[in-house]
Amino acid sequence: MPTAQNEESLLRDNRDGIATLTLNRPRQRNALSGALIAAIHDALRDLEADDSVRVVVIAASGTAFSAGHDLAEVRAIEGVDGYRTLFRQCSDMMLAVLRHPKPVIARVQGTATAAGCQLVASCDLAVAAADARFATPGVNIGLFCSTPMVALSRNVGRKQAMEMLLTGDMIDAATARDFGLVNRVVEAARLEDETLALARQIAEKSPLTLKIGKEAFYRQLELGVSDAYDYASEVMTRNMLARDAGEGISAFLEKRPPRWEGR
Amino acid sequence: MPTAQNEESLLRDNRDGIATLTLNRPRQRNALSGALIAAIHDALRDLEADDSVRVVVIAASGTAFSAGHDLAEVRAIEGVDGYRTLFRQCSDMMLAVLRHPKPVIARVQGTATAAGCQLVASCDLAVAAADARFATPGVNIGLFCSTPMVALSRNVGRKQAMEMLLTGDMIDAATARDFGLVNRVVEAARLEDETLALARQIAEKSPLTLKIGKEAFYRQLELGVSDAYDYASEVMTRNMLARDAGEGISAFLEKRPPRWEGR
Amino acid sequence: MPTAQNEESLLRDNRDGIATLTLNRPRQRNALSGALIAAIHDALRDLEADDSVRVVVIAASGTAFSAGHDLAEVRAIEGVDGYRTLFRQCSDMMLAVLRHPKPVIARVQGTATAAGCQLVASCDLAVAAADARFATPGVNIGLFCSTPMVALSRNVGRKQAMEMLLTGDMIDAATARDFGLVNRVVEAARLEDETLALARQIAEKSPLTLKIGKEAFYRQLELGVSDAYDYASEVMTRNMLARDAGEGISAFLEKRPPRWEGR
Repeated sequence: MPTAQNEESLLRDNRDGIATLTLNRPRQRNALSGALIAAIHDALRDLEADDSVRVVVIAASGTAFSAGHDLAEVRAIEGVDGYRTLFRQCSDMMLAVLRHPKPVIARVQGTATAAGCQLVASCDLAVAAADARFATPGVNIGLFCSTPMVALSRNVGRKQAMEMLLTGDMIDAATARDFGLVNRVVEAARLEDETLALARQIAEKSPLTLKIGKEAFYRQLELGVSDAYDYASEVMTRNMLARDAGEGISAFLEKRPPRWEGR
Repeated sequence: MPTAQNEESLLRDNRDGIATLTLNRPRQRNALSGALIAAIHDALRDLEADDSVRVVVIAASGTAFSAGHDLAEVRAIEGVDGYRTLFRQCSDMMLAVLRHPKPVIARVQGTATAAGCQLVASCDLAVAAADARFATPGVNIGLFCSTPMVALSRNVGRKQAMEMLLTGDMIDAATARDFGLVNRVVEAARLEDETLALARQIAEKSPLTLKIGKEAFYRQLELGVSDAYDYASEVMTRNMLARDAGEGISAFLEKRPPRWEGR
Repeated sequence: MPTAQNEESLLRDNRDGIATLTLNRPRQRNALSGALIAAIHDALRDLEADDSVRVVVIAASGTAFSAGHDLAEVRAIEGVDGYRTLFRQCSDMMLAVLRHPKPVIARVQGTATAAGCQLVASCDLAVAAADARFATPGVNIGLFCSTPMVALSRNVGRKQAMEMLLTGDMIDAATARDFGLVNRVVEAARLEDETLALARQIAEKSPLTLKIGKEAFYRQLELGVSDAYDYASEVMTRNMLARDAGEGISAFLEKRPPRWEGR
């Protein structure tokens, strides 16, 4: 994958502990070409180890968040191995968002469709402009949104997810919030500021605590409740043994701001 | 099970790719007798293999959708084997809705209670008249709605499902929509037309794609996210190898309507 | 644990089949000290076997429902075993709510935070005063709410739970209801009466049926849908063999009130 191509299709910015990755193929409605998927995955990997980064924002240039897979590219693939590689590569990138040690926030304007909708669903949090819209329209082109639905159905109730998947219809931002797909809907003009404010609020927390908590969140969800408590009790114990918890509790009891150390 | 009896308790209609099964015991509030359960299951089996059918609608005659099990019949059962057979038979019919290769839409007017509510919850989609109401009132007669709650608790949040199960209280159609039990609430006079419009929209999609997607939806829900992505990536690959996906993508890129072939 | 201490930190009341446990450390915002956790767990154990009790209400004295763990106590713990014991003890108490044979209703005024929010999430039902507020703010003190999130994430959608966990922000009672964390929001002045009315309604049902149903509810949730139906069909059969189901069905068909016997 030529680096030059990656760099232009994905912009990277890192300021005050907030790393912003901006999908930058506006003329292709930020379609997730293999190159762009690889660029996002590479960037996420770099940010994992970057101690200056506390929160990741995934944003997009232009009037669409992302149209999902690049259909011209998909059509040009020949043979089962090519399909398998592309879908596997895309799924691995989505899993990298989920497993990223830092919170990842989607900042959504315009339409987020198919794998673009999946990317929003895969983020820990999502802020949407009032004019944002979401769909899983693969059914309209004979290609059911089967990988997108893995993320969608873990955010949205069954019947609501099924309606999106079977009809391919768009839902508006307010509906997406009611369904659980996004956290907040804000005026389009306020999208960047509101997302930044949320990111900044989270960036003030202990990075080690965020990492412990995020990992535990997704792991315990897949356990029965009894195993989940066994696991989470151990996580709490491990969290207490790290310096930041002792410092945080002392700061709270002493009514002073905490000084985080852990990573 | 005499065919004559089945035929009168369940009406079948098949028009323009939409098969409608109508519960037709209005004087018994469409109670799900063993005979009616068998008739629904038989009809679903027939529709699986019927290439002329693309979407199934489950509807009801009269002022109730369904009152659930036929209590007079239940009371007449003697011995554990009789109960086991009835509850097993009913569960198998509900699973047949879930596993049906074609989307199944509930069209609900009046009350849908106990196994009647379960039938709505088991369908992929549900459209309700504004005067529809839902309950799992088994607790009032000493028989907790334990099989209905399998479907209910997979549509509705825990506390909301528990309130329905522990109180037996009715919820109205708008609440059912807010809880995730139904997709749309429409004026009673518009129920048939709105359900038909939704069914027709879905009937235009590739039957093969709908079949692949529906099966994958319910299977991936029961997997951890990593296994779900392994599975869904393979489903996407298989879907791409079928003719309809290539045709759909080409039609989209060429701005023409697709011509579906697969089944 | 000295009984005297338990008795003062937890008030017990038992009237008309409704047992109310009242957290009674108002000056400590009902912080869940080890002693209070043990007192709640002891009380729950006693109520299991008490045939006079049909429904349990967990309430709180003062202006807060509960602030979660007692941080001064947590800070004083030395060594990994102490932390492990405390978090394990607290998790076991929360599981005892879930596994209690009688429905447990949270009656919430003021703030319910961290393990206090978890206690609300762990109850089968929750009624909140309009001024109640909820948060999982552990992240602010470097100690992620990892055990609270086991209960929270089984009530509330992923993105909404994540927002609470990553920001530590309070949500108000109406938001908690929309998210699925509480069932009903009532005027503060009506909180006790409304909770009692709900408890009384449930107390009229067959205790045996409630016990069978509640246990089955949480067990079937952790099974795949096919196994869930196998299990629930057996539960329904067992429920039918108990006297109360026969009595309830006969009473319903004969239009008379049922007389429950089973426990």
